Amino acid sequence: MHSPPLSPQLLNCLTPEENTGCQHGLYFQDGERRVDYILTYHIKKPSSSRSNRQSSRFTDNAFTRSLRRGTARLGRTPPPQPRGDPEVASQDHSMDYHVDDKRLHREEFEGNLRDMGMELEKDEDTKTPGVGFVKIHAPWHVLCREAEFMKLKMPTKKVYEMKQSTGVGAKINTLVNKVTEPLYPNVEDNRTQNVKHLSYMFSREKQHLYSVFYKYQPIGLVRKYFGEKIGLYFAWLGLYTQMLIPASLVGVIVFLYGCATVDDNIPSMEICHPKNNITMCPLCDRACSYWKLKEACGTARASHLFDNPATVFFSIFMALWAAMFMEHWKRRQMRLNYEWDLTGFEEEEVSDHPRAEYELRVMQKSLKKEHKTQKVLIEKEKLTCRDRLPAYMTNVVMMLLMIGVTFAIVFGVILYRISTKTALHMSNNPTTRSNVRLTVKTTAAIINLVVILILDEVYGAVARWLTVLEVPKTDKSFEERLIFKTFILKFVNAFTPIIYIAFFRGRLVGRPGSYLYVFESYRMEECAHGGCLMELCIQLSITMLGKQLIQNNLFEIDQYFSVVLIPLKKLIRYIKSKRRSFQEEEREKKLQRYETDHFLEPFAGLTPEYMEMIIQFGFVTLFVASFPLAPLFALLNNIIEIRLDAKKFVAELRRPVAARAKDIGIWYNLLRAVAKVAVIINAFVISFTSDFIPRLVYQYMYSPDGSMHDFVNHTLSYFNVSNFQDGKEPMDPQHQVEMCRYKDYREPPWSNTPYVISKEFWAVLAARLAFVIVFQNVVMLMSDIVDWLIPDIPKDISLQIHKEKILMVELFMKEEQGKIQFIDSMIPCGGKEKRNNHAPIARSRSIPHTHSHTHANNF
Amino acid sequence: MHSPPLSPQLLNCLTPEENTGCQHGLYFQDGERRVDYILTYHIKKPSSSRSNRQSSRFTDNAFTRSLRRGTARLGRTPPPQPRGDPEVASQDHSMDYHVDDKRLHREEFEGNLRDMGMELEKDEDTKTPGVGFVKIHAPWHVLCREAEFMKLKMPTKKVYEMKQSTGVGAKINTLVNKVTEPLYPNVEDNRTQNVKHLSYMFSREKQHLYSVFYKYQPIGLVRKYFGEKIGLYFAWLGLYTQMLIPASLVGVIVFLYGCATVDDNIPSMEICHPKNNITMCPLCDRACSYWKLKEACGTARASHLFDNPATVFFSIFMALWAAMFMEHWKRRQMRLNYEWDLTGFEEEEVSDHPRAEYELRVMQKSLKKEHKTQKVLIEKEKLTCRDRLPAYMTNVVMMLLMIGVTFAIVFGVILYRISTKTALHMSNNPTTRSNVRLTVKTTAAIINLVVILILDEVYGAVARWLTVLEVPKTDKSFEERLIFKTFILKFVNAFTPIIYIAFFRGRLVGRPGSYLYVFESYRMEECAHGGCLMELCIQLSITMLGKQLIQNNLFEIDQYFSVVLIPLKKLIRYIKSKRRSFQEEEREKKLQRYETDHFLEPFAGLTPEYMEMIIQFGFVTLFVASFPLAPLFALLNNIIEIRLDAKKFVAELRRPVAARAKDIGIWYNLLRAVAKVAVIINAFVISFTSDFIPRLVYQYMYSPDGSMHDFVNHTLSYFNVSNFQDGKEPMDPQHQVEMCRYKDYREPPWSNTPYVISKEFWAVLAARLAFVIVFQNVVMLMSDIVDWLIPDIPKDISLQIHKEKILMVELFMKEEQGKIQFIDSMIPCGGKEKRNNHAPIARSRSIPHTHSHTHANNF
Repeated sequence: MHSPPLSPQLLNCLTPEENTGCQHGLYFQDGERRVDYILTYHIKKPSSSRSNRQSSRFTDNAFTRSLRRGTARLGRTPPPQPRGDPEVASQDHSMDYHVDDKRLHREEFEGNLRDMGMELEKDEDTKTPGVGFVKIHAPWHVLCREAEFMKLKMPTKKVYEMKQSTGVGAKINTLVNKVTEPLYPNVEDNRTQNVKHLSYMFSREKQHLYSVFYKYQPIGLVRKYFGEKIGLYFAWLGLYTQMLIPASLVGVIVFLYGCATVDDNIPSMEICHPKNNITMCPLCDRACSYWKLKEACGTARASHLFDNPATVFFSIFMALWAAMFMEHWKRRQMRLNYEWDLTGFEEEEVSDHPRAEYELRVMQKSLKKEHKTQKVLIEKEKLTCRDRLPAYMTNVVMMLLMIGVTFAIVFGVILYRISTKTALHMSNNPTTRSNVRLTVKTTAAIINLVVILILDEVYGAVARWLTVLEVPKTDKSFEERLIFKTFILKFVNAFTPIIYIAFFRGRLVGRPGSYLYVFESYRMEECAHGGCLMELCIQLSITMLGKQLIQNNLFEIDQYFSVVLIPLKKLIRYIKSKRRSFQEEEREKKLQRYETDHFLEPFAGLTPEYMEMIIQFGFVTLFVASFPLAPLFALLNNIIEIRLDAKKFVAELRRPVAARAKDIGIWYNLLRAVAKVAVIINAFVISFTSDFIPRLVYQYMYSPDGSMHDFVNHTLSYFNVSNFQDGKEPMDPQHQVEMCRYKDYREPPWSNTPYVISKEFWAVLAARLAFVIVFQNVVMLMSDIVDWLIPDIPKDISLQIHKEKILMVELFMKEEQGKIQFIDSMIPCGGKEKRNNHAPIARSRSIPHTHSHTHANNF
Repeated sequence: MHSPPLSPQLLNCLTPEENTGCQHGLYFQDGERRVDYILTYHIKKPSSSRSNRQSSRFTDNAFTRSLRRGTARLGRTPPPQPRGDPEVASQDHSMDYHVDDKRLHREEFEGNLRDMGMELEKDEDTKTPGVGFVKIHAPWHVLCREAEFMKLKMPTKKVYEMKQSTGVGAKINTLVNKVTEPLYPNVEDNRTQNVKHLSYMFSREKQHLYSVFYKYQPIGLVRKYFGEKIGLYFAWLGLYTQMLIPASLVGVIVFLYGCATVDDNIPSMEICHPKNNITMCPLCDRACSYWKLKEACGTARASHLFDNPATVFFSIFMALWAAMFMEHWKRRQMRLNYEWDLTGFEEEEVSDHPRAEYELRVMQKSLKKEHKTQKVLIEKEKLTCRDRLPAYMTNVVMMLLMIGVTFAIVFGVILYRISTKTALHMSNNPTTRSNVRLTVKTTAAIINLVVILILDEVYGAVARWLTVLEVPKTDKSFEERLIFKTFILKFVNAFTPIIYIAFFRGRLVGRPGSYLYVFESYRMEECAHGGCLMELCIQLSITMLGKQLIQNNLFEIDQYFSVVLIPLKKLIRYIKSKRRSFQEEEREKKLQRYETDHFLEPFAGLTPEYMEMIIQFGFVTLFVASFPLAPLFALLNNIIEIRLDAKKFVAELRRPVAARAKDIGIWYNLLRAVAKVAVIINAFVISFTSDFIPRLVYQYMYSPDGSMHDFVNHTLSYFNVSNFQDGKEPMDPQHQVEMCRYKDYREPPWSNTPYVISKEFWAVLAARLAFVIVFQNVVMLMSDIVDWLIPDIPKDISLQIHKEKILMVELFMKEEQGKIQFIDSMIPCGGKEKRNNHAPIARSRSIPHTHSHTHANNF
């Protein structure tokens, strides 16, 4: 059994008086055998559909899976899966099973449990109406057998001392330990405490006492209580948060550098110079008038904060940071594997038991075929590609459709921006007009955010639906397909508006006299003079902060709120049930622990937690060139997040079934993919979105004195206002101008080929592209070098592993030496004989006598 | 012990009469105990330094290492390494040990062997003067003990049948098997034959009988005889050769496509058109005259063979091919691991025993320190970075120096080309002049080849010397550092001239009127009109074919030649010794097998074989865009190579000590690195060396009718001959021209800015760079997808592994079921008792009674 766990019910039953009160609930009626797991079910026709679904959810996936494995061993047919998966439950429910049918299934299931060696006790006489409980006790020999199958490593009696390092290193270490002492949580990993004590630390009543946000996480205890899989999640989150500290420090420094140098920046100085008299072409047709470049002074100065040479350094730094993070995680994982005795553990590669839905489909298919061919098939059928074709087609079509929806919405927001801007420009109120840009930008960003938040939920549901449709064979493949789809949809959703702003906005504008129009009346939007980087930055910060605030931190305002935030229906239902239960509170206090815990939410897997973090990782790495403060925001979020997650797992959810895992699986690959994409995206942001390359090109190719003077003038082309199309020229009568300027590299009106793209354009373009190639390859090379320099296994761990091996071998050799001497003393002329028939080898691993690893045993 | 091997001496002793003759040599004097290994040493002061070195080499690395490990277990100090490593031997030799000293060492060593449980027999009374032999027999219990330490997997008695697949798949399989039947070697892997039979297959007398070049390799037998490490090499070589078949097929098709379309190629048609009257500027100062573009007709047509759109397709194909190869190798490796029962085997990660040189250095350091501080140090010293700094510095400096030498030589060849060309141009003989280009190109390529061949050997020696200087701690680290250095030097050596031709030649020319000069008198060389692709192709084919022919196939001409080709000294020595031994031939025939085999070359490791192949892999992937026939040449070479290597290992070298290995180690990483670099290099070759991008740009941006007509004219700029610098104009009085043309994108003399780089240049450059970005990222993405689509573990293998697990568990469960029933029948009310004190678990793995895995046991 995947470390037969403590039942979730025992969790919060811990104040001394309560403890005595429900002591009985922890044991069978005989008061001796401990309850290790509890199943719930309905005894009567359910009174409300809701409670039925909740109870059927209660039987856990991992648990039933291991049961099925167990029965398969016994050579029986696997028991029908008792509606174990949430997604099955919601489907099957409508099928309206007969009560008897259910009872039969249940009894078969219980029979199989007994065959596995489990001991059961029914408790249908509870205070919770309509719910029956089956208590399960796993006897010692069953635990031993399963531990053997899993090749659990047990601590042996043999202990050895770790060699302490000496010298300067040790001193520094001691110093570091002293400094960080207040950061260690008040729990001693090595104390021979039991889980009861641990869960006391986490109990609801004392939640302000348990380790607080500035302390390290008690990873060892987390793993002991929740199992390796969740332990790894928290370890990963911890490392990520830790790694964000240097990143945000450097980010802040880069930002401050931008602030400090804003007054030395020649281009923005030139723009803001009072003698600057450049007249710019109007920003919209007819309604807008000519404007002075001076007016863009504010944006020009602001954009320098994010568009300076330090940004280039920072995005290289962040690419290397990502590589370092990956490497450090590999090492941390290895260390945890060693500490948690997982080094020898091999995860089962394939062929977990097929899911019930899959078997159902296969059965349907065989029945159909039998019907057709009129003979009984012996071979077991499989679902072939042809059977799955419709599902695959639906998948592809739906995915494309969803992505299309995202694009359409982004396009809609663009239209909103264009039209609102034009409308506001036409307003007569001068304050409105001066605030136009800011208003439009901010509202558009907020609309985007809301859309992203809503679509995120929709996409989550769609991805699940599509995966169910696919009928994957095993649970593992189900999870992987689901994650993959969700990841793609959520990523597209979160990053499409940002990619639009970074790479397309302001590039599809056309030129004065021949603008590009959408629907023949809306001119495509331009960026403010400082480049699009500033707008990208605003969009990024609003999306990132908004997502974090809304998706996580509302949790703090109402801790129930987050769990049930979405779908909203759940919330309402929950509040209702709370109101009702308020009257029953008194009664509930006298319930068994497992009866109260029955009403907690079930554990839905780590996928949402990882997904949230990986999207955040995307924000931190993908566009970091335009927003150096992203790591800081992520850090602040995560410091809270890590504790909120812990609280949620401990107090808000039923205790998850412990599962073993050596690594974080597919998430690691997704992280790698994001880190890879980040390199190329940052290269493009620096070279195309920022003005970094044009400035360099000007400085080294065109500037007469090698300085940045006159750069602004160089980037602006001339337009002769007489070339405006009819009806597009500004109506404003005040200005009498002959030439206006616009930002582009085009030939002036007086050249032979007016308004044609100029040589400077191609030169700058070549420079931009060359930069992308150089940046991408240099950063990839450096990442590979980082990858290669940092060994995957920490030195001390590999030394310890080696040491342990040697110790084992030593023990072994001594034993044999003794034996040989003994034999030699028996046979005086022993040297000449063949000893081929001796089999003198004792087994080295001691049988797990001493104490067990499983949770249940710690009580 | 790393599978205590059969001694190499037994190898060739196999014709029936011979067999009887030397039967005695295979056993100890008692005729019962088998000889498993033989050590040789000198009994007297060596008469010649040469034979001394050879004998000391004979004690093998792997063998002594495992000995040292063994004694470490016994808690003794490790024996001084008996000059086991070739590189030590050559160093230590000059130190002139006393004979007594040596004898003491030897006796200590032998004592340690006996402590390990080995049984020794000395044989100083041989017919070979000056050489003593120590025969070693490893008794059965020692083999068992070591097998346990290594966790060798043994076949158990339990057998199960593989389920045969049915249906269409199986039919196809049968068909394929039938078709490929003649390709299978005449050995049955499953026959219970002994190694004797196998080595019979390989025996020298019958070498024409054993499996021939068109048969599959008997990998299973290779592994049985040579151990996993060498088995993996041959398996890898086999897969590589196999994968080259589709690659060379596609390559040939691409080449044929070029041949077929050469007459439809508009640019070359225009060049060859009789009415084409374009006058080109002279190719050298004064001596050369103006020339007609028509003259370049031949090269233009030839270059189309390698410079056509199919090449782009082919280089994408080859990048994916490389990714596929990697993936297939991973799968093949996994399959072999499974078949060879290596799945559970973990290679020792670190801290193999330190090398003797390392310990010597550490000892010297401690002595120095003790001398200084006047107290005995208890802590063991380590070599710190500071101690190694001089060696590291030497390493860096020498590596840079060597790379500098390569560059200098390439530069020298360039100078040779330039000066010879000028000299030949001045010749009056018209045939000489017309053949100038070809002569110069070919001689230069041959010079390059010779230089590469010589430097390859020099660099191999330098890399070894540098690594010895570094004093790496373990053998593994020694090997890795050596491989890394050798790889870098040999790669730079092989590819510098090619990279020069591909990316620099013809780009640093200047323009008429302002050419670039080397040493102020030699004009930099240009490419022929067809682009540099043609020249790249010539250089590539000469280097590749030359390397292969000279480095490998001379072996066929004289099979001794290859082994001793380089250093040449060895060769001479060898021939001498052969001549001498010719007279002794008769006597030798009566020698023990191990005495004759004493004179074979020792096995020097797989490094040279792998290195050769990886350089070839570089030729196949790196510049494949310019030379689609490379895979074909590689394939032809490898078909021979694979058998020559086998022959060499079987008949020319002492039998290597078998070593276990799960993978090919660092070589896989190097292959990956080469494949990665190949993508970017091919992108640059296509976009910068070939005319692919300029043609596209012309077609879509400048061509009036979208065809390629007038493309040639478009790429040529105008030069007014009056702008020649004084003394540089051609002396030829025949031509009276006003304008000549040259290949570049520059403004014409009549523009405002004559001879300045034109807008077209920048546009083409931008297009070239954009192509590089797109190509690189698309190909990388596709490789990643290939990587992701092909599972690392073949489906059938993972199913089998899973099945075996289930079978084990089943057996186990049945055993336990029986036990529980027994207990239950003893205690009627058994359900209520705790069974915590039962420890009912039997061990699952059976002790290796049945038969051993080691070679020795197969006799």
